[in-house]
This record gives sequence, structure tokens and C-alpha cells, in this order.
Amino acid sequence: MNHPGHWIGVILFVFAIFLILISISNFGLVKRLLIGRPMRTAELRSHHTKLLWFIALPILSADLYSSVAYGPEAGITELAHLGSDAKWYIIPITISTIVLLVILILSYIMGILAYPNGGGAYAIAKDNFRARWVSLVASSSLLIDYILTVAVSVSAGIEAVSSAYPVVAPYETILSIICVFLLLVVNLRGVAESAKIFAWPTIGFAVCMMIVIISGLYDGFRHGFVQQATPPFGTIPKGISTLLVLKAFSSACSALTGIETISNAVPVFREPHQKNAIKAYIALGVITSITLMGFAYLLYVKGISPSPNNTMLSQLASLYFGHSILYQIIIWFTFIVLILAANSTFTGFSQLAAIVAADGYLPRVLTNRGDRLGYSNGIIALAAFASILILAFHAHTNALIPLYAIGVFLSFTVAQIGLTRRWFNVKGPKWQVKLAINITGAVITAIVAIIFAVTKFTGGAWIVLVVLPVIIFLSITIRRHYDDVARELRINLSEEFPEIREVTTIVLVSGIHRVVNNTLSFAKSLGGNPIAVYVGFDDESIRKMEHKWEEWGYPCRLVVLKSKYRSVIDPLSRFIKVVEEKKGKQGHIHLIIPQFIPKRGWQNLLHNQTALQLRIWFFRHKDVVITSVPYHLKK
Amino acid sequence: MNHPGHWIGVILFVFAIFLILISISNFGLVKRLLIGRPMRTAELRSHHTKLLWFIALPILSADLYSSVAYGPEAGITELAHLGSDAKWYIIPITISTIVLLVILILSYIMGILAYPNGGGAYAIAKDNFRARWVSLVASSSLLIDYILTVAVSVSAGIEAVSSAYPVVAPYETILSIICVFLLLVVNLRGVAESAKIFAWPTIGFAVCMMIVIISGLYDGFRHGFVQQATPPFGTIPKGISTLLVLKAFSSACSALTGIETISNAVPVFREPHQKNAIKAYIALGVITSITLMGFAYLLYVKGISPSPNNTMLSQLASLYFGHSILYQIIIWFTFIVLILAANSTFTGFSQLAAIVAADGYLPRVLTNRGDRLGYSNGIIALAAFASILILAFHAHTNALIPLYAIGVFLSFTVAQIGLTRRWFNVKGPKWQVKLAINITGAVITAIVAIIFAVTKFTGGAWIVLVVLPVIIFLSITIRRHYDDVARELRINLSEEFPEIREVTTIVLVSGIHRVVNNTLSFAKSLGGNPIAVYVGFDDESIRKMEHKWEEWGYPCRLVVLKSKYRSVIDPLSRFIKVVEEKKGKQGHIHLIIPQFIPKRGWQNLLHNQTALQLRIWFFRHKDVVITSVPYHLKK
Repeated sequence: MNHPGHWIGVILFVFAIFLILISISNFGLVKRLLIGRPMRTAELRSHHTKLLWFIALPILSADLYSSVAYGPEAGITELAHLGSDAKWYIIPITISTIVLLVILILSYIMGILAYPNGGGAYAIAKDNFRARWVSLVASSSLLIDYILTVAVSVSAGIEAVSSAYPVVAPYETILSIICVFLLLVVNLRGVAESAKIFAWPTIGFAVCMMIVIISGLYDGFRHGFVQQATPPFGTIPKGISTLLVLKAFSSACSALTGIETISNAVPVFREPHQKNAIKAYIALGVITSITLMGFAYLLYVKGISPSPNNTMLSQLASLYFGHSILYQIIIWFTFIVLILAANSTFTGFSQLAAIVAADGYLPRVLTNRGDRLGYSNGIIALAAFASILILAFHAHTNALIPLYAIGVFLSFTVAQIGLTRRWFNVKGPKWQVKLAINITGAVITAIVAIIFAVTKFTGGAWIVLVVLPVIIFLSITIRRHYDDVARELRINLSEEFPEIREVTTIVLVSGIHRVVNNTLSFAKSLGGNPIAVYVGFDDESIRKMEHKWEEWGYPCRLVVLKSKYRSVIDPLSRFIKVVEEKKGKQGHIHLIIPQFIPKRGWQNLLHNQTALQLRIWFFRHKDVVITSVPYHLKK
Repeated sequence: MNHPGHWIGVILFVFAIFLILISISNFGLVKRLLIGRPMRTAELRSHHTKLLWFIALPILSADLYSSVAYGPEAGITELAHLGSDAKWYIIPITISTIVLLVILILSYIMGILAYPNGGGAYAIAKDNFRARWVSLVASSSLLIDYILTVAVSVSAGIEAVSSAYPVVAPYETILSIICVFLLLVVNLRGVAESAKIFAWPTIGFAVCMMIVIISGLYDGFRHGFVQQATPPFGTIPKGISTLLVLKAFSSACSALTGIETISNAVPVFREPHQKNAIKAYIALGVITSITLMGFAYLLYVKGISPSPNNTMLSQLASLYFGHSILYQIIIWFTFIVLILAANSTFTGFSQLAAIVAADGYLPRVLTNRGDRLGYSNGIIALAAFASILILAFHAHTNALIPLYAIGVFLSFTVAQIGLTRRWFNVKGPKWQVKLAINITGAVITAIVAIIFAVTKFTGGAWIVLVVLPVIIFLSITIRRHYDDVARELRINLSEEFPEIREVTTIVLVSGIHRVVNNTLSFAKSLGGNPIAVYVGFDDESIRKMEHKWEEWGYPCRLVVLKSKYRSVIDPLSRFIKVVEEKKGKQGHIHLIIPQFIPKRGWQNLLHNQTALQLRIWFFRHKDVVITSVPYHLKK
């Protein structure tokens, strides 16, 4: 009973049921409590209060900056089996990562210059490539990546907590799912209104990282940098290979995901937008580089090894501060900033999904704004997919990372190539410089994407490489369907007009009682001559019905049908076929079904849902208009 | 990736989806393939071909006889921690079990004499107690028990297989679920037609058990019965207590579940029913006693200890036959007979559920016969509950047994007390003897039930003791609801008659296209003056709609509503409120909604299900007749 595994099923179930409940709009009270009062469309504009760049910076950089908590660790884990001799590789790998970071930031600054109103990889690709699959590569890999961001960030956050409190370790999966669930609720409530609050955790986390680094440097100055635990530098460990180093490098690059956020959000900055956004990018680059380098250096100096139960950040912090309050604060800030990174993804995912859906490449429900103006369907979809991933990988960050970074770098590459094409076509001031930067960016990100695909292929990257084309194919199929429907429904106002045709009205009766009385009252009120149809399962019940109908005063014509197979649909559909043949295909056939509405929802379980089954079947198979006449039970 | 745990969620999902699919009746082809052609109600009678008693015996005894495979093991497992000194307890415990078996068989023979047409505990209780909760105790505990039988038998069957092939051990849960799923399909097809086939596995298993026992006796005659491995007899081990012995005894009694099957099925026997059924009972008692005693004796002689990875039967068989073909045959017959025991439960559960539902204590859907004449909803419910149990307990038989036997003995007790009351009231020939037997039976089974409840309380029996009253309470609530509804719907034929009232017809239009054209054609064909209602989210779209409506030639009156909160329901329900107030509550309000039917099912995902949401909301909150006019897309 105390193995956490079997709770997975239970949680999945509860979660699914909850999703169903909140998507049913009449689940009013709980929805109000969790989601809040509905908001007017007009309230949409007031949300974008413009932000000072140094306030926008922490808000928008939670995703990127939080990844320093797991990026270096993900890299060095790949080399862990080579022993202590391989530990020095963390230094060159981190330097390469920082070089890549600088290139990416420069490329994205070019993106801001090109698209001052903000434009993600999808918008850039759509603008610069005629082939629609290119922009779909960008959007699909970003959407996959957002899902993975939620899964990875939440899992990493929970891993940070369980490093400090090993007692929660067996419950990582459940706790991660609960976090996703809370994020879902928060995002359905709408988060934009309180965005400024989100600056503080990132600032707090950055301060914590700085404290760790400064304590490390202080320790170095007092006791010497190279210490007893410091592994040798520059030795070539047994079993090392270029592939392995590339693998470690690509894993470490997972620290760079989320870099695109600022460029998507340029309009959020105070005027001048572009200049402020560029300032933020530069500041972000400087702070992230310092943190990465300092953190990696201390990890090397202290000779820390990756452990499945204790993150390297937690190990390092506890070396300096033990399990003091300061250590606890660092852990909790790590947790909060990682959850925040997941949180910011909810907005990103749902907005991108809405844009792609508006172009007809994803189901149109994703463009619906919910009561609180968020794209609630996208938010729910993201939470559901992320939960499934967390369950499937048991909330293990390192197992998820191979799937993670390939999508990011794929969309980076598409955006860079798009910008390259743009500079060629548009030119503009200093276009050769911008072109050069984006070509460099495109080549480097393409190389990293390929390194990822090759080195992590068996480790899970194949999943993304299989899923991606499937999503693109589905997107194109969806668009084709919408195009077909639009063409089919288009009407020529001067040629077609609602014509009056004959209506044959059939009322399904199951006996003689109040519900049937009410239904017949409606049918007769419509005018015309309704036909009552009774389906009996044996001769006895049919005879009885005919007799009672007579006794009731024959309110309208009664047709009795016998069902040998205990099905109502079969005899009824045969009867309707006869009517169709008699009347020709010209008229409307109108089937009226009584609908029993119990006072309480659970009571529905106690009544056969014949009306529902009939509607599903007839809509699928026949051209029959179906009317449900409700009868509300009082008890 | 290779931990089996995360598949649980996936399987649960697939299973749930499958259940939904087969319950939707238009899922025609797959249903035909899996379930077979539908059968006429008239085919029901021809099923009960009467059986000779020695053929009926193995068919009806799979449930009881198969439990010898795990009963003694379940008993001795309770004492395993006391070491070798406690092993001899298997002998007195098995003897007690056999004594109980004899008492129960005698009691059930009395049951047959009282109810020659077969009557389970529920029928007996209903017939002899006025208080309806007594019969509900019997039915509910039996229903719980049937669910547990499926879970326990399937788990035990898979454990037998994994004893022989340890490679499947990590997949026990999944394989058990697959077995339940196959049983579900088989039972939805209907099993009664091929019932005779089911005699052979039980016979085969009995022969296997006899081969094991005879080999053991032969071995004993050649090498002496008391061997090196034989533990001391009669020593009092350290740590033994009365409670522990009772606990072991009650676990061993799980071998007696399924004893009621023959008494429920008296009409299946050739004439004279009763005499043949009694013969079968006596034969069953003799064979089961011999098997239990022989098996337990050999287990003692060979000093076999329970092991989580290797059943005791498998250990014993491999001592005599190694891993030869004979051993494999024994294992596979054990598996087959246990699966068969689970299979026979499907009929028992669904029939009992149907009888109780017909009395109004369970949802009425359980009385519906499916296409193949089985009570398909009961069959599906059983499979679903059993799967959940297997998942929750990771297919560990010994964890499930505490929950198992309490229900059986509770229903035994109710049946015995019922029979006791009957002999008092009805009397008849030799009633005092029958009375004495049933009183003894009632006292003994009550004692065993209490021993179970006490000794296994913390081990899981509390679950049953909590669930049981809940089910009984629900049953009574359900019956009350049905009674209320029947009272509310009853009509006085001479006083009430369908009256003609005014109908206000409202057509919801989302623009001007073919679907709307078709809907308006129907609305106008009904006669009267329909009102078209358009809900716009902004002024622009409303202005445009009004203009186009004019251009179209104003097919009927148009009302435009603006929705500030992007909801169609809110403005529409406010509009309907206005209409209601104008017309008074006397007339019918008739809302016509266009319904878009894509050619393929998956395409439904691409269209907003506004019609469905409107129906759910309006049926819940307003007294509005709702008509859906389908428009079938061609592509």
C-alpha cells in the first residue's frame, strides 16, 4: 500500500475528471471559486502595463536563468561514469555554453531589430518562408518544447526540494503533478495582472546564486582555490571520446532554453521598446554568464559529483552553509524560480497555440479566450501533456532533457535562417553586420541541433524526431479540413434562401406518463399531425400500450414497433427509412424525444441515456432533425 | 523507460477508452468483430441445455476447486515469520478448513431443498426477511466479493505462471489486466453457449492435483514419509498466539469461496434437479477435501515455505518433476482453472446485479441485456472494478485475500440465518434436522466472519467494512429515487391530456452559410414566425451580420446580442428570460441550434461543440425545448 506507483493511476483519473468538470461550463460554483469572476473582452487592453527594462528582465528571464540550476549538472552527468579525471571538463563545456549564449543573444537582438512588435520563431518563419511547413517546424517544435519546459522545470524544482528533504523523494511524481495542477489553476485565473510580483523570485534566486559564488570565492581566497577535493585539470580520462564530450556539451546547452522570451515580448517594455529590450538582453547575458561560470568553477574546485538524490547546487550550498537557514532559502528559491519558469511557459504555449490555431493549423478551440481572458484550452492542454510526460518519466529531469533541447535548437535555427533571408531581402542600415550575426547564429544552432539529434538519438531524441513530423502532418491535415469546410459552407446570397418543405413529426413514447404528456403537448402545439412511435420488446407490452393509448383518448396516431434485439434504434431507423421512402428525400424528418432531467447530476446515472444514444446514432447515420423536450423532475 | 510502473497509467487510459468505445453503439465494426452478431431475445431460452451432474460439477466448481491452489498457502503465509517450527500448523488448519467445508456443503444442500429453482443469498434473504437492508447486506457483500474473486483469481493465475517463468514477474500487473480484458471480451460475446468446454480445465486441474498427491504418496512409501526436510510436528513455536492461528485459519478459508455456485444453478441440472445437484455437492466435498488434505500434507512433509516469487504448488511440483513437461502442464492447468474461476464470476456478478437492479436498488442500466444477451453493463462494471483493484494492489494475491473472504462469509451467514427462519416458518418433512444444520452453519460462518473482521481488520478488511455500509446506503438512496420518480410521473388518464400551447421559436445563427440556411429552412417549415438570434463579440461583427441579413432578403426577424464575456450562453439565456416574461410561463420556448456533422469522427475535435454546451446548460437551468438540425459535411 505504501509504494507510490499505484497512486499514479488514481491521480491521472482524478486529474482527468477535474479537467472534464471545469470544462463543463455549468460547474459554476467551483469554477468561480478556483478561476474567479469572468472578465470582459474590453479588459484585455488594460493588461499590458508597460514595464521598466530592469523589472521586465527578471520577469521574462525566469525560464532562461532558472536553467542554470540544472544545465551544468545535466552536462557533467554524461561524463560521470568516467570518474574524477573527467570532472575538469565542466570548465570548457561551460565556456562553450557561454559562447553559444552570447551568439544567441546577439542573434535575438537582431530579431528585435527586425520585428519591433515582437515575433517568435513562428512569426519570423511565416514572414520569410513561403513553404508553410517551415513555419510549422518552428511552431511545432516550440509547442513540444513548452510542454517539456513545464515537465523539466517542475521536475527539477521538486528534485531541488527533495535534495534538501529526502523524505519527499518517493513522492516526486505526485508532487510534480500537484505543482502542474496548481499552475493550471493559477493560469486559468489569469496571471498577467500580477506580473510584477514575478520579478522577485528571479531576483531572489539570482541573489542566492551570487551568495553561493561569492562565498566560494571568499573560501578560495582564504584556503586557496585548488583544494584537496579539486580533481586534476587537463588529464585525459580513460574512455573519453568526442561523441561523449559533444553529448555532455549538448546536455549542458539545456541551460540556454527560454532565451527567446524577451524577443517575443518586446511590446511589454516601456518606450523605446527596442532599446529597452536590447538592454535587458545584454544584462541577461552578463548575469547568466557570470552565474554559469562561477557556479561551474566552484563545482569543479569542490570536485562535486552528480547524484540522483541530491542536486549539485544543493551539494555545493551545503558545503558552504551546512543545512542552515541560508541553505534552505537557496533551495526554496531554486524551487520557486523553476516553478515560475514553468508558469511563464503557460502563457507562451497558449498564445502560440492560439496564433497557430487562428491560422487554421490547430483545432480552433485553442483560440477561445476563457472567462479570465486566457486561452484556457491551450492552458489545459499544456497541463495535461506535461503531466503525462512527468508520469511517464517519473519526474526524472535527466531523462527528460534529451527530448527537451532538440526542439529549442530546431526553432532557434528556423528563426535564424528566417532572419538571414529577411536581411537579404529587406536590407536596411548595416544589414551586412546583422546578416553575418544571424548566419553565424543559424550555423551554430543548426550544428547544436544536429549534435543533439545524433548524440541523444537513442536517449529519447528520436521521440521528438518522430513526433515532430506527425504534428506537422496533422497540422496540414487540419488546415485542409478547415479549408474544405469553408468552401462547402459558402453560400451565394442571391441564389440560396431558406425554403419551406414538408415536416414529418415523429414522437418517441415509452409509455404513458407525465414526461410523455409534456412531449406530446409540445409536438401537438407545433401544428401538423405528429405520429407517436412506441417500441416494445414483447407482444404483451405492445398490446398493453395500444390498449392504454385508446383509453387515454388517442391523442394522436400511434405506431407500435416490435424490437427482437432489445434495441430502440434498429426498429426506429427502419421506420424512418419507410417514412423517407414515402415522402421522398425532400421533406424534413423531425424526431421528438422526451428528455428526463433529474434534479441532481448523479441521478443521471440511474436513468438509461436512450435520448443521448439516439442522438449520437441518428446524427451519424440519418438526416433527421432531433428535438429534446426536457421534463424537470422535482425530486 | 523499462520500469513497468509507468505503463499502468497508459493501460488504464487505453482500457477506459476501449470501454467508452464499445459502449458507444455506433462503433459497429469493431464491436461486431469482438462481440459477434446480436442475438434475439427469443434465443435466451435455448441456452439452458440441461446438464448431467458429473458434467455440471466441474463447470460449476471451478471457482471453489481452483482456490485450493492458493488457500493453504494463504494460511501458512500468516505464520511464515515464526520459522520452521510453525510449519506443522498447516495440518490442523487444513483439517479445520475441511470441517468448515463439510458444514457449508450440508447447509447449502438444505438451501437446495428449500429453493429447488436455485436461489442465492440475496433471494433467500429477500424471501425470509422483511427488512430490506438484510438482503442488501447479502447482495452487496456478494457483489464486492465477485469483484475480489476476479482480482484474486486472475492475480493468482498470473503468479502461478510467473513462478514457472520468472521472466514475466515484473509484468504481473499488466498481464493480469490483459487477462481481465480478455475475460471482458469473452463475456460480452456470451459464454453460456459453449459452457461444456469449461468442464475440461477443471477436470484437468483435478487430475494434475491428483498426480501431485499420488506422486507424493509413492515417494513417501519409497523413502519414508517423514524426511529430512520435514519440520517437527506439535512443537509450540515462539511468538505464536491464538490470534495468529485464527488469522492463518481465516486466510486458509479463502479456499472455500465459490461454494455457493451449485446452489444458485440448480435448474441447470438434468431432472431430478435437486437430487443431481445434491450429488454434485457431495462429490465436490469429497474431491475438494481429498485434494486439500493431500496437498497440505505434502507441503508439510516437504517443509515447503511460502515465497513471493514461487507459489507453494509450483515448489512442490518441481520437487517431484523438476521443470519437466509435467510440471509445465500443472502450472498451465492452474493458470487456466484460476482464469476460469474468474470467468464464471462474470456471469454470477452480472446476473446478481441485474436482479438487484430490477428490484430498484442499483442503476437500471444493469438490467439491460446487450447484443449477445449477457448483462453487458454489469460485465463491464465488474471488469473495470477488478482492474482497479489489481492496479491498486499490484496483482499481489496475498494482499487481496483479507478483503476477499469477509464478504463471502457475511453472505453465507445471511443465507444461513434466512434458511433457519424459513424452516421455522415453513416447517415441512424433517425440518428439525434441516433447522439444526442451518443453525450450525449460521453460527460457524458468523464466527468465521467475525474472526476475519477482527484478525484482518488492519490488513484490509476495514475497507470492506467501510465500503459495505456505503453501498447499502447508496442502494437504499437509489431505490428511493426510483420510487419518487415513479410517483411523480404517474398520470391520471382521465384527467391529463396533451394540451396545445403557444410555441416561441428561436433559431441560433452564427453567420450566413449553408448550415444556417438548412436550419432556417426547417424552422420556417414548422410554420409560425421564428426569431433568428445572432450573438456577436464586438460591434464590427454585429454591424456586418445585420447588413448581410438585409442583403440576403431578411428571411425572418433577426435579433442581435452583444456578448461582453465571449460567451454565447449568457446573452442567449438573458434573451430567453425576456421572452419568458413576455409570454408568461404557459407557452413552450423552442430553441433551434444548427449542428455540424463532420464526415469523420476525429474532425469533431476541430469544431467548437457549442451545440453540446448549450444543450447541457439550458437543460440544467431552463425549461427550453432544444432542437438540433444536423448538417452533414461531405468532406
